[in-house]
Amino acid sequence: MTSIEDLETPVVTIDLAVMEANIRKMQDYCDRHDIRFRPHIKTHKIPEIAELQRAAGARGITCQKLGEAEVFAEAGFEDIFISYNLIGTAKLKRLMELSRKARISVAADSAAVVGGIAEAAQAAGLEIPVMVECDTGAGRTGVQSPRQALELALLIDRTTGVSFQGLMTFPTSMEGTPPFLAEALDLLSGAGLTAHIVSGGGTPQSWRVHEIPQINEHRAGTYVYNDSNTVAAGTATLEECAMRVRMTVVSRPTEDRAILDGGSKTLSAERLLWKDPQYGTILEYPEAVIYHYSEEHANVDLAACGRKPAVGEPVTVIPNHCCVVSNLHDQVIGVRDGQVEVVWNVKARGLVR
Amino acid sequence: MTSIEDLETPVVTIDLAVMEANIRKMQDYCDRHDIRFRPHIKTHKIPEIAELQRAAGARGITCQKLGEAEVFAEAGFEDIFISYNLIGTAKLKRLMELSRKARISVAADSAAVVGGIAEAAQAAGLEIPVMVECDTGAGRTGVQSPRQALELALLIDRTTGVSFQGLMTFPTSMEGTPPFLAEALDLLSGAGLTAHIVSGGGTPQSWRVHEIPQINEHRAGTYVYNDSNTVAAGTATLEECAMRVRMTVVSRPTEDRAILDGGSKTLSAERLLWKDPQYGTILEYPEAVIYHYSEEHANVDLAACGRKPAVGEPVTVIPNHCCVVSNLHDQVIGVRDGQVEVVWNVKARGLVR
Repeated sequence: MTSIEDLETPVVTIDLAVMEANIRKMQDYCDRHDIRFRPHIKTHKIPEIAELQRAAGARGITCQKLGEAEVFAEAGFEDIFISYNLIGTAKLKRLMELSRKARISVAADSAAVVGGIAEAAQAAGLEIPVMVECDTGAGRTGVQSPRQALELALLIDRTTGVSFQGLMTFPTSMEGTPPFLAEALDLLSGAGLTAHIVSGGGTPQSWRVHEIPQINEHRAGTYVYNDSNTVAAGTATLEECAMRVRMTVVSRPTEDRAILDGGSKTLSAERLLWKDPQYGTILEYPEAVIYHYSEEHANVDLAACGRKPAVGEPVTVIPNHCCVVSNLHDQVIGVRDGQVEVVWNVKARGLVR
Repeated sequence: MTSIEDLETPVVTIDLAVMEANIRKMQDYCDRHDIRFRPHIKTHKIPEIAELQRAAGARGITCQKLGEAEVFAEAGFEDIFISYNLIGTAKLKRLMELSRKARISVAADSAAVVGGIAEAAQAAGLEIPVMVECDTGAGRTGVQSPRQALELALLIDRTTGVSFQGLMTFPTSMEGTPPFLAEALDLLSGAGLTAHIVSGGGTPQSWRVHEIPQINEHRAGTYVYNDSNTVAAGTATLEECAMRVRMTVVSRPTEDRAILDGGSKTLSAERLLWKDPQYGTILEYPEAVIYHYSEEHANVDLAACGRKPAVGEPVTVIPNHCCVVSNLHDQVIGVRDGQVEVVWNVKARGLVR
C-alpha cells in the first residue's frame, strides 16, 4: 500500500469517496426530476471515470472535441454528443469515420457548419443528428435569437445528411435560458418541428435546472471533482472537492511568503471565477492566499496565518478549475482513506483537435 | 510535402528560419559581451532544439524541474543547471542518480534545502555544485539580502557534499540586480569565497545584460520562440515570433464577434504581461482583440476590423507566453517557407516533478 504521504509532489489526487458521492448526487438529482443526464467528460478525460458515471445512470456523454470523442468511442461509449462546431475536410472525414462506430451527435450554430456536415454525410451515406446551439446569454457561440434557431432548424430539417435533434445551450442561465427556449420551442412547434432534446449545461446551475421546464437533458462536467470555482459559486462545499493537488513548500523567503513547488504548469493560470487573482485554496492554511504564480512556483501570502508552514511541509490545494488541471497532467492518483487505490492515465488529455 | 494550409487546427507551428535567427542573435550577443549563455529549455522542452542552441555556442542548459533534467541528460546534455530548490527523499535520490550521468548543478535559497542535498550527497559519495539564489526584486524565491547570500554561501562552503558555485537571480532587473550582486560579491570576497558563476536570467532584459558587469552567465528561454509578451516588453518584434498557433474561425455569432477553435487548452489562460486580459495577437487581423477564453474557444472582438473573417477561415495567433503553450501540446510542427519540415515531440512536456 502506498500512502498519500509517500507521493512525490506536485501530484494530482482524486478522493474516490468524494468523487463517487458527487456522481451519485448529480445522478439522483437528475433522476428525481426526470432530466436525462449526459456528463461532460472534459473534466476528467478518463474513460474509467465515465464508466462510473454511466453505471450510475448517465445516458450518453458529452465531448468538446472530436479527438476526445475518438478516445471515448474506442473505450466503448456508444452515444456521444460533441458540443462543438466541426469544420474542415479533415475533421468532417474523422466525424464520418467515428459515426460508423458510435452514435455521434453534434452542435451547429450556422448554415456554414450545417452545410459542411451535410455534404460530408451525404458523400458517406450517413445522417448526422444535429443540435442547434443557442446563445442564451453567455456571449460565446450559438445563434443569437429564437428566430435564428428556427431558421437553422428548418435548414437542418430540409437538408439530406443531417437530422434536427433539438436545442442546446451553455451555460444554462436562470435568467436568459428560459425565455429564449420557450420562444424557440414555440416557433419550432408552429413550424411543425420537434426538439427531441433540449439540453442545458454547466455545473454552477445544476441544482436549479428543474426550474426550467423546457430542459429535458443536463450536461455537467466539473461536478465530478468540484473546485474552488464551484465552491465560490455556492454549488459545492470544500468537502465535496475530490481533486486535491498535493504540493510542497520549497521556500520561505520572508516571514509572510511561502513558495509552493508548482504554478501554472500544475494549477493553471486561471483566476477564481475568471476574475480574482487567487490561484487555488490551501486546505491546511485557509487564511493563506495564492496571489501569484509562475510556471513552477506559486507565491503564497501567509500574513493572515497564525501558524505558518516550514520548508518541506506538504500542503493540499483545491485548484480554481479542475478541468484545466486535468489537461495539464498525464496521470491522476485515486486515493481512499489516505491510501493510493488506482492510478489513472488522463487518456484524452491535450486533444485540442 | 505538406503545406501549412493542410494542417488540422488548432496546431502549434514553429517558423524554423525565425527560430534559427533568434538562436543566432542571442548567442552572438552573449559572445560579443563575453557572457556565458545557458539557455533555459522550459520554453521548448525539445532536445533537438537544445541541440541547435548548443551547436550555436551555448554552454550548458537550464532546467526548472528534475524531470526535465532527466530527459535532457538522457538526450546527451552533460552540463545542466536546475534552477530550483530540490526537496524530499525521492527527489534527492533522483538528483544523486542523475549526478552520476551528467554534471548537475542546483539552486538553493535556504539552509534546509542545502542540508537535504548535502546529506543525500554525503550518503552517495558525491559533491553537488550549488548556486545561491538571490531575490533581487522579483519577490519569488531567493535569499533576501546580500548578507543572507553570504551566510548561505559560507554554509555551503563548509558542508561536505556540496560546493559553492556562485550566485543566481531571476529575473535580471536593471534596477535591483546590480546593487544586490555588487554588495554580495564584496561580502563573499571579504570572506575569501569566490563566486565562479554569477548568473542572471530572463528574456526581457537580454539585450542589456552586458550593462551589469557582475553577471558572467545569462539564462534565457523565451527568446528562442518569442511571444506577445516579449513583443509588448519591447524585446522582440512580431516578425521575430517563431511560435505561431494556427487556428480556425468556427463561429461568427454576431457582426463583431468571432470564435476560434482553441482557448486555454491551446493558448493558456495567461494574460498579456500577466495583467491585460488579452489572450494573444492575431497576425491577419491586428485590430482584433482576443478578449475572453474558455477551454476550447477564444472570443474575438472584431469591432475595430475593417475586413472580418468568415466561418472556416484560418488565422495565425502569436500567444502571450510561448513556454506555457509548449507545455499544452504533445507535438509542434517546424515549418519553413510554408511547408512542414519536421514534427517534434515536446519530450519534456508536463514534467512538473
